[in-house]
Amino acid sequence: MTRLTVPADSLFGLANLPYGVYRVPGGTSRIATRFGDDVVDLGLLLGTEGDDAVFAEPTLNAFMAQGYDRWVSVRERIAAGLAGDIPDDAVHATGDVEMLLPFEVADYVDFYASEHHASNLGRLFRPDNPEPLMPNWKHLPVGYHGRAASVVVSGTDVVRPNGQRKGPDDPAPVFGPSTRLDIEAELGFVVGTGSAMGTSVPAGAADRHIFGVVLFNDWSARDIQAWEYVPLGPNLGKSFASTISPWVVPLLALDAARVDTPPQDPKVLPYLAMDRTWGLDIDLEVVWNGQVVSRPPYAAMYWSPAQMLAHQTVNGAPSRTGDLFASGTISGPDKDQRGAFIELTWGGAEPVTVGDETRTFLQDGDEIVLRATAPGAGGSRIGFGEAAGRIVPGPAA
Amino acid sequence: MTRLTVPADSLFGLANLPYGVYRVPGGTSRIATRFGDDVVDLGLLLGTEGDDAVFAEPTLNAFMAQGYDRWVSVRERIAAGLAGDIPDDAVHATGDVEMLLPFEVADYVDFYASEHHASNLGRLFRPDNPEPLMPNWKHLPVGYHGRAASVVVSGTDVVRPNGQRKGPDDPAPVFGPSTRLDIEAELGFVVGTGSAMGTSVPAGAADRHIFGVVLFNDWSARDIQAWEYVPLGPNLGKSFASTISPWVVPLLALDAARVDTPPQDPKVLPYLAMDRTWGLDIDLEVVWNGQVVSRPPYAAMYWSPAQMLAHQTVNGAPSRTGDLFASGTISGPDKDQRGAFIELTWGGAEPVTVGDETRTFLQDGDEIVLRATAPGAGGSRIGFGEAAGRIVPGPAA
Repeated sequence: MTRLTVPADSLFGLANLPYGVYRVPGGTSRIATRFGDDVVDLGLLLGTEGDDAVFAEPTLNAFMAQGYDRWVSVRERIAAGLAGDIPDDAVHATGDVEMLLPFEVADYVDFYASEHHASNLGRLFRPDNPEPLMPNWKHLPVGYHGRAASVVVSGTDVVRPNGQRKGPDDPAPVFGPSTRLDIEAELGFVVGTGSAMGTSVPAGAADRHIFGVVLFNDWSARDIQAWEYVPLGPNLGKSFASTISPWVVPLLALDAARVDTPPQDPKVLPYLAMDRTWGLDIDLEVVWNGQVVSRPPYAAMYWSPAQMLAHQTVNGAPSRTGDLFASGTISGPDKDQRGAFIELTWGGAEPVTVGDETRTFLQDGDEIVLRATAPGAGGSRIGFGEAAGRIVPGPAA
Repeated sequence: MTRLTVPADSLFGLANLPYGVYRVPGGTSRIATRFGDDVVDLGLLLGTEGDDAVFAEPTLNAFMAQGYDRWVSVRERIAAGLAGDIPDDAVHATGDVEMLLPFEVADYVDFYASEHHASNLGRLFRPDNPEPLMPNWKHLPVGYHGRAASVVVSGTDVVRPNGQRKGPDDPAPVFGPSTRLDIEAELGFVVGTGSAMGTSVPAGAADRHIFGVVLFNDWSARDIQAWEYVPLGPNLGKSFASTISPWVVPLLALDAARVDTPPQDPKVLPYLAMDRTWGLDIDLEVVWNGQVVSRPPYAAMYWSPAQMLAHQTVNGAPSRTGDLFASGTISGPDKDQRGAFIELTWGGAEPVTVGDETRTFLQDGDEIVLRATAPGAGGSRIGFGEAAGRIVPGPAA
């Protein structure tokens, strides 16, 4: 047996207790929490009897499906367990294990919840329009479905996509590797408790359905996207890969991070109204080849995660355990708070300096890492780990 | 033991042999084929030993994942088995069983492959534009991801969705039940053999990846869709329900139905080029409260299913067993060949007569049934069964 302690300033102290799935070399997929720099096996810490059989599963889905009361009680038991003697074989250094996709993704929806991002893109793509936001933007959280199969865990290489593109002066589209490969720094929200077809999740009840939060990089091929997206929205420009962080931070760990969203004007329709329209005070970093190039503030997001879930289901669409909905690019009001390179470089016109080079979009070999922290209980800070990916060349076009 | 015979003109003769999942009252989900008016249990007909263990599964996914050579050999064994003595308990009259969703849907993508449909919608939505098709339309099969969880089997009630809508003269959006509830008569293509992330399916190889075909009704709330869809495409206007037929007709049964697509001009990019760009000569019927109101011809579709799969994966996006991609509304050149009521009634301006009433969009209690037939081997015709759904009122808005 062993005892674990972590420094008071650890981003993975008792205030965090995220959930993930790990594997030791040659081993099977197992569920764990992270405590300091250790990965602690939950099947071995808590047992696998009765309801705890979910900790013998290879993904978090079965546990998430048990619902809010279990999320609360298990979190308390993990904290109690970590304060006592822990079986030696339940503990691994983070460097000794491989982290896997923590849950099976059911449906994936991407939103567009940052007013700064949506306004910047409106100015870039529709420069002649005096109003950068579309008329619907402040009335509903605009979103679209993406490819669930393409969600990969941090550390997975991202293959540069081939596709069609057509510049404004090209007589016809050409095919080849994307030349405007970009990122979108986002958060992803993981649904634990779904809702049946024909019913909806009230915005005020969403925090009993949302299990947790991950970092989310919605890799985007801007040239492919620009040519394909009218009128049915993004498809191939996004569907090649989306990277999430391996640790799902419980929404229960983010009570201290709740903040009011920016004022919503005009007033939202009743199904989107909440007693408190909460956002989350989560500070992200975008790291390009080791250098921080942007610090997007999630607190600046216009639409609340709860409103996004309420909107997704208000038409009676079913939601399921493992549904993942992402926030859309997180951009703040300042230039160094923009969460996509198309904004950061203003459509490629204003390159950024990365190390001793300049960049507009991603080159093969470039690595992007998203990181984030948020206030935790008792004055602590909690971390989200990383969502990292390196660009590798695609197959010959 | 029993012997089965079917009339030579049966739509479910030896030329068809579709796959489905059924349940007797109180029983479990089991895999079957349909022969004439009988449902024949494949686990009992073929056994469940070795590779045939997939016939003890509750969905077709495991069988579909075994790949093309197994699809060929199992089809031959089913035909041979049906010619001999069949265990009595393997046979049920179609009326004695409940048909279930035949496969677990992985990712669902909806295309927009009918030139007539896309042109009609262009004229309706962008009347001032001299060119009804978008510039990209003839260069790539335009498509978008939809909600996999909302795919339901024929016979499932469709709950009228609530949502936001805003007419051109409304000062602000209002919330309530959709008042322009529509259908889209489509075919759905089921992927049996997927492709790994970073690879793609060549158009010429797609028929070894596509397992089969179902009828597909992409229920659409036009008022919700019109307000939400710019710039990221349809979401709530579509995500409440999509109905498929319970029998998956194998692509192997549709050799005799292969026809050339209409000429594709301009010439497609090489990744979409095929030795023969095959479509399918499948005739659909749209039945509104018992009356045929449209006969959409699938043979008129501009883009081939193989091109749709090649396009979906050309950027390296992974595909999986159970992926479902739909054709988009099937509309022919004639008015009575239009597969959506928004076209059939020209935006609601020209009501159609249904029984002794007129209709523009769907009323509560209305039932829509899609049916289809196609040429089969040996001069036969094969049937697709039905994709049926009745509109029921939604929860109070």
